[in-house]
Amino acid sequence: MQASPPMSLHDALAHALGADRLNTDPAFAEAQAGDWSDAPRCAPPLVILPRTPEEVARALAVLAQYRQPLVVQGGLTGLAGAATPQPGEVALSLARLTAIEAFDTVGGTVTVQAGIVLESLQTQVEAAGWFFPLDLGARGSCQLGGNAATNAGGNRVLRFGTMRERILGLEVALPDGTVLSMLNRTTKNTTGIDLKQLFIGAEGTLGVITRLVLKLEPKPAAAQTALCALGSFDAAAQLLKALRMRLPALSSFELMWDDFMVAAGEVAKLKPPFSTRYPVYALVETLGDAGDDAQQALEAALGDALEHGTIDDVIVAQSLEQAKQLWAARESVGELLAATRPHAAFDVGVPMDEMERLVATLRARLEARFAAQRHLFFGHLGDGNLHLLSGPYEAGTDLLEVEALVYEAVRDAGGCISAEHGIGVVKQAFLGLTRSEPELDLMRKIKQLVDPAGILNGRRVVPDRDTSG
Amino acid sequence: MQASPPMSLHDALAHALGADRLNTDPAFAEAQAGDWSDAPRCAPPLVILPRTPEEVARALAVLAQYRQPLVVQGGLTGLAGAATPQPGEVALSLARLTAIEAFDTVGGTVTVQAGIVLESLQTQVEAAGWFFPLDLGARGSCQLGGNAATNAGGNRVLRFGTMRERILGLEVALPDGTVLSMLNRTTKNTTGIDLKQLFIGAEGTLGVITRLVLKLEPKPAAAQTALCALGSFDAAAQLLKALRMRLPALSSFELMWDDFMVAAGEVAKLKPPFSTRYPVYALVETLGDAGDDAQQALEAALGDALEHGTIDDVIVAQSLEQAKQLWAARESVGELLAATRPHAAFDVGVPMDEMERLVATLRARLEARFAAQRHLFFGHLGDGNLHLLSGPYEAGTDLLEVEALVYEAVRDAGGCISAEHGIGVVKQAFLGLTRSEPELDLMRKIKQLVDPAGILNGRRVVPDRDTSG
Repeated sequence: MQASPPMSLHDALAHALGADRLNTDPAFAEAQAGDWSDAPRCAPPLVILPRTPEEVARALAVLAQYRQPLVVQGGLTGLAGAATPQPGEVALSLARLTAIEAFDTVGGTVTVQAGIVLESLQTQVEAAGWFFPLDLGARGSCQLGGNAATNAGGNRVLRFGTMRERILGLEVALPDGTVLSMLNRTTKNTTGIDLKQLFIGAEGTLGVITRLVLKLEPKPAAAQTALCALGSFDAAAQLLKALRMRLPALSSFELMWDDFMVAAGEVAKLKPPFSTRYPVYALVETLGDAGDDAQQALEAALGDALEHGTIDDVIVAQSLEQAKQLWAARESVGELLAATRPHAAFDVGVPMDEMERLVATLRARLEARFAAQRHLFFGHLGDGNLHLLSGPYEAGTDLLEVEALVYEAVRDAGGCISAEHGIGVVKQAFLGLTRSEPELDLMRKIKQLVDPAGILNGRRVVPDRDTSG
Repeated sequence: MQASPPMSLHDALAHALGADRLNTDPAFAEAQAGDWSDAPRCAPPLVILPRTPEEVARALAVLAQYRQPLVVQGGLTGLAGAATPQPGEVALSLARLTAIEAFDTVGGTVTVQAGIVLESLQTQVEAAGWFFPLDLGARGSCQLGGNAATNAGGNRVLRFGTMRERILGLEVALPDGTVLSMLNRTTKNTTGIDLKQLFIGAEGTLGVITRLVLKLEPKPAAAQTALCALGSFDAAAQLLKALRMRLPALSSFELMWDDFMVAAGEVAKLKPPFSTRYPVYALVETLGDAGDDAQQALEAALGDALEHGTIDDVIVAQSLEQAKQLWAARESVGELLAATRPHAAFDVGVPMDEMERLVATLRARLEARFAAQRHLFFGHLGDGNLHLLSGPYEAGTDLLEVEALVYEAVRDAGGCISAEHGIGVVKQAFLGLTRSEPELDLMRKIKQLVDPAGILNGRRVVPDRDTSG
């Protein structure tokens, strides 16, 4: 056995980083006590705020020496509790790592520190004629390191991919403080195992992402937006295929079922977009040139779809203001969530050819069992990503039964229990429904390999082996 | 210690799979003795030819029990020797796993066995109005499992990504025969470590890919092609950025330096495309609609570039035949390779803002040291992927000096030693130039974790730890 280190943990960290990197203020700790999920909040006794990637590695080395459990924190906008401290954990915040370290304005790549806020990066690269296409509601608070750790998605994945497709290189500090510098800047790199992929989407359980090399796109001059009214899910699927073929600039295809549209209209006080109601609606966006070409291309494609009977009605935005109105229902999700508390909210993946049946199955089962609640469906059709908001339930209801009902149907449809929100602490109990035991076993072994003491974001994502049997 | 198994390996395999899955014919073995690289050929004493993914797993379990080293073989078109047998290895061929198992014609995904030939998949999905965009010269022989194991690239990565971006799901048999079934079918899936990523690009060292779920695109109706003459590398970079912004359908941007164009013209007996010579040429392709829109969009964008002086001259193909002529120089690489033997051929990654300087550095150093040889540069500009063909050298020349000269300059430019061909057995000595010791260490540990006996594609990709120091 090893003798106890001579200093307290606090003193060792202060010695390694400087005392001004440590914050034990209870008010600050309270602000760091949880993310946007419903996971129980827990104020950390200490928040470490390194100023450089190198300081992150040094902090980890000290924490490893003391076998001190820790949670990594970015913008705290997660929806699965991965960044919510658990009892006994100190917090390591990346909020001070906000530098853009390099910007290749010829090739369109940028090297950034992990704590930069998504919207801040978007703004800074747009000033140079480039575009970072990942976009999500939390853009004003979420950080790029967190976007990578959760493989963030959002509304433009259809054209530009998830965060994984944006990442050319990563620098990661392992739980023992070893730095893996993988700051590759080219699209193609086939030189052994692509280790950075391990850390993307692992929700901070394998290492702390400290730097990223991101791939940019040339800045589109304008967005073209339309809202389509459709007679069936099948028509929506046909429309998506036709538009993908005709419009390579297609960037969003958001599906909303009628009851979602009605509920969104109520909470956000919106005028119904069409004079009658339709079974489903598709919100379509292309990102293209500022001239008339892109607008005409969208109008021509939708005109043909109307003529062929794929769509029943359509509104094409003629101004930024009108585009905003068309997005209003889809963007009212925050208000809908607030209005339906307590609720169960889902973010599941389901293959497109199973989606219609799954929605029908879930609707029937939920309405039979929970008749007093609303069950609202919407999603990113092209990504196989379905959202469901079910509520409001009575205060204090245990929502496990709702979750089990939904996740079991998702499993039966060949889907996954989380498309873009992650597992964190709130979905661990269900992970085994859509990941097999050999997969969970290999995940545990990899975790054990890089973090044998289990101190980094422990008790998250992969459940411990079931020893009850 | 364990007692020797009672049967011979051959008998055990015959018992597990059936004797008709085993081939020991020397003529067949000779055909399986190597890939397209210059790695020394070695005929395997036994070739195992499973008929199903399940048989692959069963074969691996038997081989693991006997601690029998093996090499996994696909279409044998690799350029790094990863599929070339090493002494003592038996071969496991996936050539009989050719079924398309499922095809979602609504969402555009396909579930296939690993041995299907790339061109065969392309043809079959196009018949249903879909498109598999990965494309490379070896399309008529290479297999999808091999494309995944090497993270294949090619000419359309600019728009459609590498093989990694095409893969939604994988099934992998681990070296002990355990099956990891990760046949996800949605774009978004954030449910723990994305284990399939480990196997993509690992060149078969961690497991045998047996099934793949692939993402398709709607089939473009037509290609639009142009060849641009440019005054400088910088002009080419400007053109790429302008076209990426204007033309979301841009799928290829192939750069060729003048000496490459001259040499290609000689070996393939081509008429020079322009009446004068220019420093560099860019071959541009969009994949779009069959109507005039896509052609007009390309012509308008190139017309503007001509007017602004970004390009000096341009030929826009007006027919399929003319498009083929414009591609002829770029497609003559096979003939160029044959005409320059013995040669050193390179496939390196280099950030775009370093590419011009790297080409100048390499040209100067190579011409100074190897004045009698040709040094021809071409590449996929948008992917940061530079190819170099240097030769012919005298028969029997040890080309290590050429390789060291090139790879050291690539390292200094922040690049990587292989963009799309992989490491295999032929580039192991140089891997440490552009991957750090902590990276190599973690790769070795992961290999050890899944293949403790080191029997699957051993002695490849990651060099053994240097014990000389």
